[in-house]
Amino acid sequence: MPVVPLLHIPHPPQSLMNAAILSIGDELTLGQCVDTNASWLAAEFAATGLITIEHRTVADDREAIARAVRELASGVSVLVLTGGLGPTEDDLTRFGLADALDPGSELVVDPEAVAQLARWFDKRSQPMPRSNDVQTRRPPSTRMIPNPHGTAPGLAGQLDQCRIFALPGPPREMMPMFRNHVRPALADLGKGVTLITEKINSFGVGESLAAERLGELLARDRETMVGITAGGSIVTARVRFRGAGDQARDEVQRVARRIEDLWKPYAFGRGEETLSEVIGTLLRDRGKTFATAESCTGGWLGKLIVDVPGASDYYRGGWVTYTNEMKSACLGLSSELFDEGGPGAVSEMAARTMAEGAIRQSGAAYSLAITGIAGPDGGTSNKPVGTVYIGLGRPGGEQINTVVRRFEFSGDRLAVRHRSALTALQMLRFELLGVTERVSMLWETPIMTETPGS
Amino acid sequence: MPVVPLLHIPHPPQSLMNAAILSIGDELTLGQCVDTNASWLAAEFAATGLITIEHRTVADDREAIARAVRELASGVSVLVLTGGLGPTEDDLTRFGLADALDPGSELVVDPEAVAQLARWFDKRSQPMPRSNDVQTRRPPSTRMIPNPHGTAPGLAGQLDQCRIFALPGPPREMMPMFRNHVRPALADLGKGVTLITEKINSFGVGESLAAERLGELLARDRETMVGITAGGSIVTARVRFRGAGDQARDEVQRVARRIEDLWKPYAFGRGEETLSEVIGTLLRDRGKTFATAESCTGGWLGKLIVDVPGASDYYRGGWVTYTNEMKSACLGLSSELFDEGGPGAVSEMAARTMAEGAIRQSGAAYSLAITGIAGPDGGTSNKPVGTVYIGLGRPGGEQINTVVRRFEFSGDRLAVRHRSALTALQMLRFELLGVTERVSMLWETPIMTETPGS
Repeated sequence: MPVVPLLHIPHPPQSLMNAAILSIGDELTLGQCVDTNASWLAAEFAATGLITIEHRTVADDREAIARAVRELASGVSVLVLTGGLGPTEDDLTRFGLADALDPGSELVVDPEAVAQLARWFDKRSQPMPRSNDVQTRRPPSTRMIPNPHGTAPGLAGQLDQCRIFALPGPPREMMPMFRNHVRPALADLGKGVTLITEKINSFGVGESLAAERLGELLARDRETMVGITAGGSIVTARVRFRGAGDQARDEVQRVARRIEDLWKPYAFGRGEETLSEVIGTLLRDRGKTFATAESCTGGWLGKLIVDVPGASDYYRGGWVTYTNEMKSACLGLSSELFDEGGPGAVSEMAARTMAEGAIRQSGAAYSLAITGIAGPDGGTSNKPVGTVYIGLGRPGGEQINTVVRRFEFSGDRLAVRHRSALTALQMLRFELLGVTERVSMLWETPIMTETPGS
Repeated sequence: MPVVPLLHIPHPPQSLMNAAILSIGDELTLGQCVDTNASWLAAEFAATGLITIEHRTVADDREAIARAVRELASGVSVLVLTGGLGPTEDDLTRFGLADALDPGSELVVDPEAVAQLARWFDKRSQPMPRSNDVQTRRPPSTRMIPNPHGTAPGLAGQLDQCRIFALPGPPREMMPMFRNHVRPALADLGKGVTLITEKINSFGVGESLAAERLGELLARDRETMVGITAGGSIVTARVRFRGAGDQARDEVQRVARRIEDLWKPYAFGRGEETLSEVIGTLLRDRGKTFATAESCTGGWLGKLIVDVPGASDYYRGGWVTYTNEMKSACLGLSSELFDEGGPGAVSEMAARTMAEGAIRQSGAAYSLAITGIAGPDGGTSNKPVGTVYIGLGRPGGEQINTVVRRFEFSGDRLAVRHRSALTALQMLRFELLGVTERVSMLWETPIMTETPGS
């Protein structure tokens, strides 16, 4: 096979605007933490029609920062730096930026930054540590970007044709500063052509089967590109199309709907939408409430539900019955269940009784109960690590009509528990859509007659 | 403030070996997924005494790949590429690498790779798709690295003084290939000299104050470098020293102990150790148990506790009392508490009663209760969003001796709740260390006499 000539379209088409990201920090180059800012920024750029062509990470090293700024700025229209704006001596971004933008000059004091920082510490009734002084200085050709969530203002400047923004590293400070100050400053770039992307998320179906269902849509030579990734047990299809605004948007929506259709009923949402949000909407629409009873997940299911603002409209609360005594005292599991020869705390009967106890004690319409063996120890031959019983309590005339499913989840303690919580949520979603009896789920295993002592 | 001259030690000292990482993939530059390979590789390099000075990410773009390889290889001893070795048309790493290492020549077929790939598909009783053909080709000056977990072999080559390795992107393929083939090939580098790092984690003290306490230790011109980062509300000191094995280890341990001392009692652990793990050890050592009662955190506190294997030794379980009715029914909060003019569900009294109810219902020695306003809505002038009351129930003779602290956490709904859960854990840790009465915590605010209806 010859080394094929460079025939493919220059990447990106030269008529379009490019961006680069520079992450700064020893903790990043040393591998002591994972950089999540870069992917977030790249996605934000994409949403404004800018293609990120490069992402670099350098240490807290003034010379390396200055060099990277000069090199990256020469090839893109926008460069965003994150990190290294803190008050400590290893925070050298402002100095590196000064060396690149205003070589030979000194940092200048920004009176507005002085006032803002004074207010910050005043509000907290604390004296301003001397170390924070440096955060009021900027390279002379830059201006400051206010930071409502921290002491590090950002910096905005320009090097030749490239607009440069330096933002602090903590995501909850960086993100609003990008959205409120950087994004509006890029509004004039990337005009006319946008890159439209959409994500369709599914749960409870394997990646290969999900790919098979999409068939032709995955071909690489299509104008609308579809890719599949799996992460945190969620299988996601990513659609992207680049073109004039409305046309791109329509085409992406058409393909997204097609994927949702092919992935029924496992596809639960778009973009960043979570299973908890979707269930919240379904319950609120139906005026129904629910409650939880958790053992091995330890409260993770409740946590995911309460992640959604306004969850009190439909979530009553729950029990974390981590010991057998708590299972009996709070949810009415009979102590015989735990006897030698009984089915045990990880069993169809335990999940059923927990689900029904949660409904009785809370008065909710629905309940979810989880009991299992998360590992690393505690598995047996009949119930290996990863064995989890999930009970769904639901209205059934006079009685509670409970469905229990058994799963053998793969993965470590965290993965087993996370998959348990998401599976429980998906089971409730299926019930609210009326498809409980017709769907099988990934990792599901048949419930055998329970052997004593197993 | 002058732009200070570049007085600090060249970063890294020139006598030592440096490495760089190049990640390749549209999904990375477009921000559709987070690159976890880079931090893993950097940590692996550090463990072998190599300092990663740069990490770059470029798109699936042959020219960009070739350019990045040439630029990075000119400044380091080792360069590892990940991604872009798959069978599809957008996998261009082998072509970019060929352009950099063997310009003008053609890819050659590797008979061993042909045999391995044939075995791979044979074992799975599948015909080999024609697209996989490309995975048997390599730039002529390189050799192939076998991949037992996938169809993409790696590539090993050299450009001037730099050793270059290209590995596939999926972590479960890349990691064993690095450990089994790349790491041994670097054994002669960095000999005698290792980079020893250690992390000391603290919670409940601000970054500036934490830095102030370290003083001189943070100076950039020391042999042992100390840096501070804050992430997920945890303030971390990172110590690193490069030298002969034992000497480096001793020196890093000495400095780490000094930092723990200066950060008392906020420093809770080393490396990846979590507050939950530390509390688990303290409770197990003392033969004590505890229980939780959560409102706004929705089970997050319990989840963090159960993240630790063996938590059933000391954790009984808890209640997620998300509605007032659940607070009354499960934990005995009197309904007058919620009356107009009463202190309300977010109050000192509510946290106290929840903590005491959890001990009474579970029989545990200690309890933690959390009730607050996580936002985005629901704040008032007296109790803004972020107001959280945390109750610590503890043994006190005949009675339960409860301490309640009030906090005003900054951040969004997730940050407020995460900080609430970590603060609760730190309060229990302080209690088990016997320092409850002597410590103040970040975000703590005084408890005022409760105004009716506030």
